[in-house]
Amino acid sequence: MLCVGLDPDVHRLPPSLTAASPSTNAAVETFCREIVDATADLVCAFKPQIAHFAALGAERELERVCAHMRSEHPDVLLILDAKRGDIGSTAERYAAEAFDRYGAHVVTVNPYLGGDSIEPFLTHDARDPDSGGVFVLCRTSNPGSGDLQSLLVDSEPLYLHVARRVVSWNELGDCGLVVGATYPSELADVRALVGDLPLLVPGIGAQGGDIAATVSAGRDTIGFGMAINSSRAILYADASPDWPAAARSAAQSTVAEIRSVP
Amino acid sequence: MLCVGLDPDVHRLPPSLTAASPSTNAAVETFCREIVDATADLVCAFKPQIAHFAALGAERELERVCAHMRSEHPDVLLILDAKRGDIGSTAERYAAEAFDRYGAHVVTVNPYLGGDSIEPFLTHDARDPDSGGVFVLCRTSNPGSGDLQSLLVDSEPLYLHVARRVVSWNELGDCGLVVGATYPSELADVRALVGDLPLLVPGIGAQGGDIAATVSAGRDTIGFGMAINSSRAILYADASPDWPAAARSAAQSTVAEIRSVP
Repeated sequence: MLCVGLDPDVHRLPPSLTAASPSTNAAVETFCREIVDATADLVCAFKPQIAHFAALGAERELERVCAHMRSEHPDVLLILDAKRGDIGSTAERYAAEAFDRYGAHVVTVNPYLGGDSIEPFLTHDARDPDSGGVFVLCRTSNPGSGDLQSLLVDSEPLYLHVARRVVSWNELGDCGLVVGATYPSELADVRALVGDLPLLVPGIGAQGGDIAATVSAGRDTIGFGMAINSSRAILYADASPDWPAAARSAAQSTVAEIRSVP
Repeated sequence: MLCVGLDPDVHRLPPSLTAASPSTNAAVETFCREIVDATADLVCAFKPQIAHFAALGAERELERVCAHMRSEHPDVLLILDAKRGDIGSTAERYAAEAFDRYGAHVVTVNPYLGGDSIEPFLTHDARDPDSGGVFVLCRTSNPGSGDLQSLLVDSEPLYLHVARRVVSWNELGDCGLVVGATYPSELADVRALVGDLPLLVPGIGAQGGDIAATVSAGRDTIGFGMAINSSRAILYADASPDWPAAARSAAQSTVAEIRSVP
C-alpha cells in the first residue's frame, strides 16, 4: 500500500547527481527515474507532484518520467498530483493534460467547484482505457485544513459531506478520496462512510502521520484499499552516492511497518 | 473594468492564422499576442487560463505571451488563472511558477485547503514587488458550484464564510475574490461582506451572466473594484482574416455596456 511521491527539490538532490548532470532539469529527471526504478517492486503507486516540475519549467522531463513509469512499470498506478478544479470546459483541458499528455491513471482534484468540475475527468475520452480516475480532496493533511473542511454542515464537518458527494460521483467512474494521515480518527470516519472506495493518504513521514494508526483507521474490508504516500522521507533518505539504495531501503522499512500492523 | 480571458482553443482559431503558422502552438502564441495588442488599451486585466496551454504542452508559448504583456502593456494586470490549492511547501512551488516563471501579478487560488495553503502566495519573495496577489475562489460561475459552496454553515452558505476568511487573510497581502456573474444577488451579498476588496467576475458572455446586473451588484464604493472577465465572446468574435479588429470591436462593445450602467 506504499505510494512514493515525487516532489523533486533541487536544493536536496544528491550532490554527486547534480555534479554529473548537464542541467538542473536533467538532474531532476534522472533523480525521478532512479527513484522509480529503485522502488517500483515495493509500491502500489507513484505520485508525481506537478508543482515541483512546473516551478522549474520541467514539463518535458515530467512527460519522460511518466512515460518511463508506464513502459517499465506498467502495473504501478500513476497518480498525477495536480489538485485541479475548474469549470467544465476548462476541466476537460486539465483532463487532457493529466491523461493524454502525462499518461496518468488517476489525477487528484479539488471538490470546491462541485460535481460538474469533476465529471470531465471521469468521462474524458482518453487514449488509455485504464486512465480517467480521480482522487478527490476530502480531508487534507495540512495544519490549516480545518479552516473550511471542519466547518459544520447539519452538525457534520464539511469533509464528510464531500465524502458522501464522492460516493455519488463514483457512479460515473473511478473515484477515490484524499484523506490525510495526520488525522486518523477522521480517516476512520471517512472510511466508515465510503465503503471500499480507494483512499490516497498523504502525511506520513516528514508531515508526522503515524503509520500504524493510519493503516488501522483507513484499510478497507479486505485489509487494503489505501495508497499511503511518503515523499521526502524516501526521496531524501541519503545524499551519498548510494542514494538510490538508501531510498529503496527507506521504502522497504516503510512497507515493513505497514505490513506489521495487526 | 473589462478583463479579457485567454482560453485558446485550437479548434476555434482563425483558419487564416492556423494556415500561416508553423505549428499549432505557434498559432496559439500569435493568437494570444494579437488579442492582447488589439485590446490592451480597453482592459484592466488579462487572464490567461493555464489549462488551455498545459493541455497543448505550450508552457514556453505562455511564458512568452506573459512576458509580452508585462513589457508592452505594463499597466494591465496579469492574472494567471490556475486555481491552485495545495499544502504549504507545494503552494510555494506554485507561487514560484505563477510569479517568477510567468510574471503574474495575481493568481487564482482555491480555498478548500485553508489559510496555510494561501499564505505562500502572499509572502512569496518574488523578483517583482508588484506581484504576489491572489483571487480566492468564493462563488464560482458553473452550474454545479452550489454542490459545496451553497451548503449552509451557521445558516449561511459556505461561500460567505469563505468571503470572511479572505478578509482575514488579506492582512497578509493582496487578496481579492472570484465571484461568478451568473449569480448577481450572491455577488451583492459578497460585496456587502468584503468592503472594497477587488472581485474577479467570470461568467458574462458565453456563460450567460448579465452585465448590468453584474455591475450593479458588484461595484465598490467608488464604482469600480471589479475585473469582469470575458473570454470566448471576445476571442472568437469573428474567424475572418480581420479577427483582431473583430475582437477589439467586441471588447469595445463590452466596455460600452459596462460604462452604460447607471
